Amino acid sequence: MTSYTIGIDYGTESGRAVVIDTRDGRDIGTAVHAYGNGVIDQHLPGSDRPLPPEWALQDPNDYLEVLKNAVPAAIKAAGISPDDVVGIGIDFTACTMLPVKADGTPLCFIDSLRSNPHSWVKLWKHHAAQGQADQINETARKRGESWLPRYGGKISSEWFFSKALQIYQEAPEIYNAADRLLEATDWVIWQMTGVETRNACTAGYKAIVQDGNYPSNEYFGALEPGFANVVDAKMSRDFAQLGAKAGGLTAQAAAWMGLKPGIAVAVANVDAHVTVPAVGVVGTGAMVMIMGTSTCHMLIGDHAETVEGMCGVVRDGILPGYYGYEAGQSGVGDIFAWYVNHGGVPQEYFDAAKREGVDIHKHLEQEAAKQRPGESGLLALDWVNGNRSILVDADLSGMIVGMTLGTRAPEIYRAFIEATAYGTRVIVESFEKHGVPVNELVAAGGLPEKNKLLMQIYADVTGRSFRLASAKQAPALGAAMHAAVAAGVYPTIQAAAAKMASPTNKVVQPIKENTAIYDQLYGEYVKLHDYFGRGENDVMKHLKKLRNQVRGVTA
Amino acid sequence: MTSYTIGIDYGTESGRAVVIDTRDGRDIGTAVHAYGNGVIDQHLPGSDRPLPPEWALQDPNDYLEVLKNAVPAAIKAAGISPDDVVGIGIDFTACTMLPVKADGTPLCFIDSLRSNPHSWVKLWKHHAAQGQADQINETARKRGESWLPRYGGKISSEWFFSKALQIYQEAPEIYNAADRLLEATDWVIWQMTGVETRNACTAGYKAIVQDGNYPSNEYFGALEPGFANVVDAKMSRDFAQLGAKAGGLTAQAAAWMGLKPGIAVAVANVDAHVTVPAVGVVGTGAMVMIMGTSTCHMLIGDHAETVEGMCGVVRDGILPGYYGYEAGQSGVGDIFAWYVNHGGVPQEYFDAAKREGVDIHKHLEQEAAKQRPGESGLLALDWVNGNRSILVDADLSGMIVGMTLGTRAPEIYRAFIEATAYGTRVIVESFEKHGVPVNELVAAGGLPEKNKLLMQIYADVTGRSFRLASAKQAPALGAAMHAAVAAGVYPTIQAAAAKMASPTNKVVQPIKENTAIYDQLYGEYVKLHDYFGRGENDVMKHLKKLRNQVRGVTA
Repeated sequence: MTSYTIGIDYGTESGRAVVIDTRDGRDIGTAVHAYGNGVIDQHLPGSDRPLPPEWALQDPNDYLEVLKNAVPAAIKAAGISPDDVVGIGIDFTACTMLPVKADGTPLCFIDSLRSNPHSWVKLWKHHAAQGQADQINETARKRGESWLPRYGGKISSEWFFSKALQIYQEAPEIYNAADRLLEATDWVIWQMTGVETRNACTAGYKAIVQDGNYPSNEYFGALEPGFANVVDAKMSRDFAQLGAKAGGLTAQAAAWMGLKPGIAVAVANVDAHVTVPAVGVVGTGAMVMIMGTSTCHMLIGDHAETVEGMCGVVRDGILPGYYGYEAGQSGVGDIFAWYVNHGGVPQEYFDAAKREGVDIHKHLEQEAAKQRPGESGLLALDWVNGNRSILVDADLSGMIVGMTLGTRAPEIYRAFIEATAYGTRVIVESFEKHGVPVNELVAAGGLPEKNKLLMQIYADVTGRSFRLASAKQAPALGAAMHAAVAAGVYPTIQAAAAKMASPTNKVVQPIKENTAIYDQLYGEYVKLHDYFGRGENDVMKHLKKLRNQVRGVTA
Repeated sequence: MTSYTIGIDYGTESGRAVVIDTRDGRDIGTAVHAYGNGVIDQHLPGSDRPLPPEWALQDPNDYLEVLKNAVPAAIKAAGISPDDVVGIGIDFTACTMLPVKADGTPLCFIDSLRSNPHSWVKLWKHHAAQGQADQINETARKRGESWLPRYGGKISSEWFFSKALQIYQEAPEIYNAADRLLEATDWVIWQMTGVETRNACTAGYKAIVQDGNYPSNEYFGALEPGFANVVDAKMSRDFAQLGAKAGGLTAQAAAWMGLKPGIAVAVANVDAHVTVPAVGVVGTGAMVMIMGTSTCHMLIGDHAETVEGMCGVVRDGILPGYYGYEAGQSGVGDIFAWYVNHGGVPQEYFDAAKREGVDIHKHLEQEAAKQRPGESGLLALDWVNGNRSILVDADLSGMIVGMTLGTRAPEIYRAFIEATAYGTRVIVESFEKHGVPVNELVAAGGLPEKNKLLMQIYADVTGRSFRLASAKQAPALGAAMHAAVAAGVYPTIQAAAAKMASPTNKVVQPIKENTAIYDQLYGEYVKLHDYFGRGENDVMKHLKKLRNQVRGVTA
């Protein structure tokens, strides 16, 4: 019998619903719904008051609009009967978290709290909690907390307790009004099933759950006495496993989407993690890189090692029975977009792109592809959005060196691409240096299919071949695969992957002469990486601190 | 009796002729002629072959076109009789030099030599002779040459013997074909008078003449055996003093310009040096900054001190009887233009400028003026065109740090302005540290009148007030003042200045709170300045070297 599942991929700017045939993983219908309020980083909707620097919020109502719009549109595009849909699953950015009431109502839906920015969803790239992250790390180091090495020695400002502590310290009225603090991905599943669950993946990677336990209440109390009971007061110690069924679809949610009530809704998942089985990786040694606005590096291991600067290693965090490693780069596609839109690129390149009938990134890619490695004389650090791995420091910032009066925009564009490739090489080398072998590299996400030059540069810089995932929407496929497991179509995610995963036959090989030049440039990159990133010159931090003082912002 | 002189200011992109009333220095007629071949830095006119990086050439015929076009137009604009013009003087960029035959014919006018880039004029900002400069400095240090400290310890790649040695080493056929090597400013005077002269100013500052002597033939021989006789074979040991008459205007040159033959033509001069008396500075302690594409810092002292990184100190080099100090920044307005045209600035700002009916620089200035010091979180090094003072190294390059995804173009624009202000503060502090007091700062040139924000930032960064020269065309006025001395209207340049110099009444005061913030940022600047500029991390040099290797260029 033909059965379908729906995977919904919640991204930074939009949500995408994909209808998948559970027999072979074929994508038979897709629809995208852009978030009405997008990324809220200038001011709250309906307000003129500017948000402080480094803030990035979202509107949870936009997530529901994806259910109401993208899902029916995807079913229509697929041309199937909604009755043949047996399950639904989602994946999300993380840590993207929000405060809600006991019935699941987001605090930003409540008129009296709506004008307080802390009542809204804090998006993954909200970077204003670096002070809290520093405090979390310092306290953990002092107390010798055993979980810290599992996170590369540093908890990121992007993660759950950094953001939760920021609410507690800066907006106690919001903290007190919140009955629950939870990941947006779990909140959406709650809206679909009427049941509050916490997925083991974000609990492990973002909320410091190791072997089933959060950090102790004593630890949280050492951070702030009033924060000691945060877990018991605002969270839950029950975790739902990936691939399990969170509940049945409620009548209300079924009506939103035009689906049958009661079908299986899979436990919430994360975009990067769900992509690993979607590209067919179900064993150790392959690093899957999900490349988009940012890049996540996912790796399956058979034991836990301490790797400098990794985001985390969590048992069962990606695949049951294995240790899932995560590392990441906070800015990749975002940096290219920033440079094109604001950095910026002269109009002549936009005009040329228009004449050629291609998008500006494609045009710059073509121009940049004419350059040989080293020819521009430029070298950049890829920290325009901070550094997630291996320095774990959102207060770092971008740098570019080598400009002359002859420097042109496509050279700068290429330098930023190269910078992100050096950043990936640092991560790969950190894993290998700490005893976690990387035998294969698999590229997924939106960037690799858009930008051929990018993948060649990554291959040349790392000196390694890259397999390219062919699934256009690997995360949504992964979510649909987990829905198929939750619906009982397959007994395990490995079994689902054997039938549904997307093949990755295209391989990009490094060009030896280019690698020889990039080895030299990488040496220069590492020197600057350590100079600016390891405390020899903290100018990036000083500049941000001074900026915040001048703007009158609490750092 | 009313008498007029004409001053011609030869800039980087155009020549400007100004008719001046010798009684009061009033500018009564101006005309500009843009060089047809402009700055030749991509390929020679009529050729597709790309020039190597760092090259910057000019066409000497463009200089004659200025005489033929701008001078008659200025006379017409002044509405005077050409018969009332009693003298003519010029000032020029320097070191801008060329190889010519014994009759003054530039080698690039000769068909068989024209396709060799070395036959053309090497413009001041030709930076491809850094290898030769390094060799000149190393040999001088080894031999303990007494003149080296008079040039801040380093001869620049921009200067005469760096460029001459480059011709000798890279194009011996051009070197051998040249009967004379000389400054373009002297060449133009030769074309006007029929007499070859060498002005004492460029001889002193650019061709290492101290107390009437070049470096010894032994020194040149130590550089390259075949270069030992460069002075006797290609140059002259006779120097003409500033303000003296080089000769009378020839009939041919008079016909070009519509002037009377035989009128006094002043000895050639340099744009920066000639500006000092033009803004009324005829004594010690005032630093005159001539701010345009680059900035020259001119200072009159009563004795010679060794100042790190100064371009030179020359007796009688600016004013008779005094020691003239020169320092400089290789890129100022050029950096802003580069950023606007290529770095670059998004179209929305050009559109906004158009809507407001202002030029793009004015619009960005307005946007940048809305920012407070430190607010952007950015810090740049002003070396996009190399560093002339105090590091004297054309192989240094630009750097900017602190970019986030929130960084916008006007912030980058302001960061580059601030960087040039920090560069000036380094120079001022170097003079004071080495015993040459700077009691007053006077700003002249094109930039200060165009950009109010710029002058406020300079005052805030240095914590000093700036007097602004009111003469729109101070260099041309200075050239006309020297013409008045050459014509015998005044006995000395001091006497001419007393009547003709332009008053400088507008003063920009530093804002104390801004200076407090800039003091912090300057501390960060100095740390990066020393890190990248004093050998701690030679990444800028490594990048240029690699670039040249990849491009197949001789460094």
